[in-house]
Amino acid sequence: MRDQPRIVMGHGGGGVLSGELVQHVFAPAFGGQVLSALADSATVTLGGTRLAFSTDTYVVRPLFFPGGSIGDLAVNGTVNDLAMSGARAAYLSCGFILEEGVEVELVAQVAEALGAAARAAGVEVATGDTKVVESGHGDGVYINTAGIGLVPDGVDIRPQRAVPGDVVIVSGDIGVHGVAVMSLREGLEFGTGIESDCAALGGLVESMLAVTPDLHVLRDPTRGGLAAALGEIASAAGVGVVLQERSVPVPDPVANACAVLGLDPLYVANEGKLVAFVPREHADAVLDAMRAHPLGARAAVIGECVDSHPGMVVARTGLGGTRVIDLPIGEQLPRIC
Amino acid sequence: MRDQPRIVMGHGGGGVLSGELVQHVFAPAFGGQVLSALADSATVTLGGTRLAFSTDTYVVRPLFFPGGSIGDLAVNGTVNDLAMSGARAAYLSCGFILEEGVEVELVAQVAEALGAAARAAGVEVATGDTKVVESGHGDGVYINTAGIGLVPDGVDIRPQRAVPGDVVIVSGDIGVHGVAVMSLREGLEFGTGIESDCAALGGLVESMLAVTPDLHVLRDPTRGGLAAALGEIASAAGVGVVLQERSVPVPDPVANACAVLGLDPLYVANEGKLVAFVPREHADAVLDAMRAHPLGARAAVIGECVDSHPGMVVARTGLGGTRVIDLPIGEQLPRIC
Repeated sequence: MRDQPRIVMGHGGGGVLSGELVQHVFAPAFGGQVLSALADSATVTLGGTRLAFSTDTYVVRPLFFPGGSIGDLAVNGTVNDLAMSGARAAYLSCGFILEEGVEVELVAQVAEALGAAARAAGVEVATGDTKVVESGHGDGVYINTAGIGLVPDGVDIRPQRAVPGDVVIVSGDIGVHGVAVMSLREGLEFGTGIESDCAALGGLVESMLAVTPDLHVLRDPTRGGLAAALGEIASAAGVGVVLQERSVPVPDPVANACAVLGLDPLYVANEGKLVAFVPREHADAVLDAMRAHPLGARAAVIGECVDSHPGMVVARTGLGGTRVIDLPIGEQLPRIC
Repeated sequence: MRDQPRIVMGHGGGGVLSGELVQHVFAPAFGGQVLSALADSATVTLGGTRLAFSTDTYVVRPLFFPGGSIGDLAVNGTVNDLAMSGARAAYLSCGFILEEGVEVELVAQVAEALGAAARAAGVEVATGDTKVVESGHGDGVYINTAGIGLVPDGVDIRPQRAVPGDVVIVSGDIGVHGVAVMSLREGLEFGTGIESDCAALGGLVESMLAVTPDLHVLRDPTRGGLAAALGEIASAAGVGVVLQERSVPVPDPVANACAVLGLDPLYVANEGKLVAFVPREHADAVLDAMRAHPLGARAAVIGECVDSHPGMVVARTGLGGTRVIDLPIGEQLPRIC
């Protein structure tokens, strides 16, 4: 890793290069135990209270896109990371990096979108910071948020808990956020008006936990898409995953756009979806609960966890063949969130 | 505010312009109650546990400077914000924005400095995120950290608690961090080897709380220096502050450098100092406890809180005159932290 001389865009892509940076540079330097669990959020105990704690920085370009904005992402992305530990987000911090010369009115619009998203998600922005950098050292607005929330008693959701037999469920259509941003950015017209799926998943997760606290793994497939999410879980738990490709809900406009852009929907970022590994005995009830929630109406079983090919995700294709779903190396869609 | 068309560097300077941005743009948009308390960190209650929660983004230039680095600042700055609520930092989040093309080895050096500072401060990096932006949209490495820590029972430290009669104590020499960075950046040679005072203040605060949990206000005078810290406290509590200018410890090399650079030491950033408002009956004992700690060896009483001129800081000068210490408007030293 360290003989690779320079940072490339792919180091921020959520794939193999990002993983190498964490594994070879950050984890050894920081040396903590919690970070090495590699979950979407850390679970820590403070004063006898079990908390989920997570952070993400948002550098999406452009700042506003069909269905959302960097302000929406900055709330929902971090709220969702906490939800993937079973926690309902309570408080957010918010750090802005503004570029000299950006219009104050634009900053205000971003802040208003962020505030509205926070109210919709039921989370409070409790603390913040603003830095300004010279023109040519930023890109309008970058936002970091960190979040904290309570992990309910009896809940222990993390990638390592995937076991053979688990049923793999996705909460709805995939690929929508990435295609919405890319089609705007590239000035492409698909005549379909695809909008980002950006949404806060805390309520959906609560409805799933009401069925059973024993959900094994939750993951929101953002950068790197469903492929990266499943690959990371397979690797962390040392299990195999078999994906029924025909069962993965991909809307036609997304499939068409991906064909034009040369993308695989399995690798495209989502911002309002989750993938769940659920014990088989609870799978039907959890699926029903998801479908009863507005954000899970199109939930579907897409595969299962197996003990063969540990660490590997294999898709059964529509034609009856199989293909290996590799982790993405770098960045298919730069600055998508 | 919103009729001011564009962001200028001063909006990140921690002075009047920063305050206007919070007051007119962020606070109305976010609408929370906690944020409006305007402390260095928010105090929130989760699961019956009282927590301090804070964030800062670090954009210091250059990344390494005499006495520290952006990695040290990213730990100590946030640890200190928590300490200003009386909390010992327990966990940090860490979000990197890397610029495409930056050397991986440099990123590793920053990460190692950050990890070492975390171990020295007794805080664990629990969760992180990395984004990469194109060359020309960043400046090597930007870092955001957020931190959480327990607020001890009986402790209620916030700017609003300053009352007339409080004794104002500073923990040591001021102006050192800002001068160290600026002299390097400007290529100035003062022949003095001034090093940043960057340090984690959790231990010093614990030794002060061991004297009495009833400290009224703590503030680390970073951007905007001692002048901004005192001005914000005076404004938040609606009290006056009288500063004995001759009592403020300013090392000769800092005074000389400030003379060359045209700076007022009262406005220069510190990264390992605090200012405390202490009930008069505890002031001597708190001062003794501070002086017994390595980071408070040069602690000094520098003034008092009064009921005249509410919201205003007035300095008694060495010649027996008085001058008003205004809040800085914008940015005396850009990108100092």
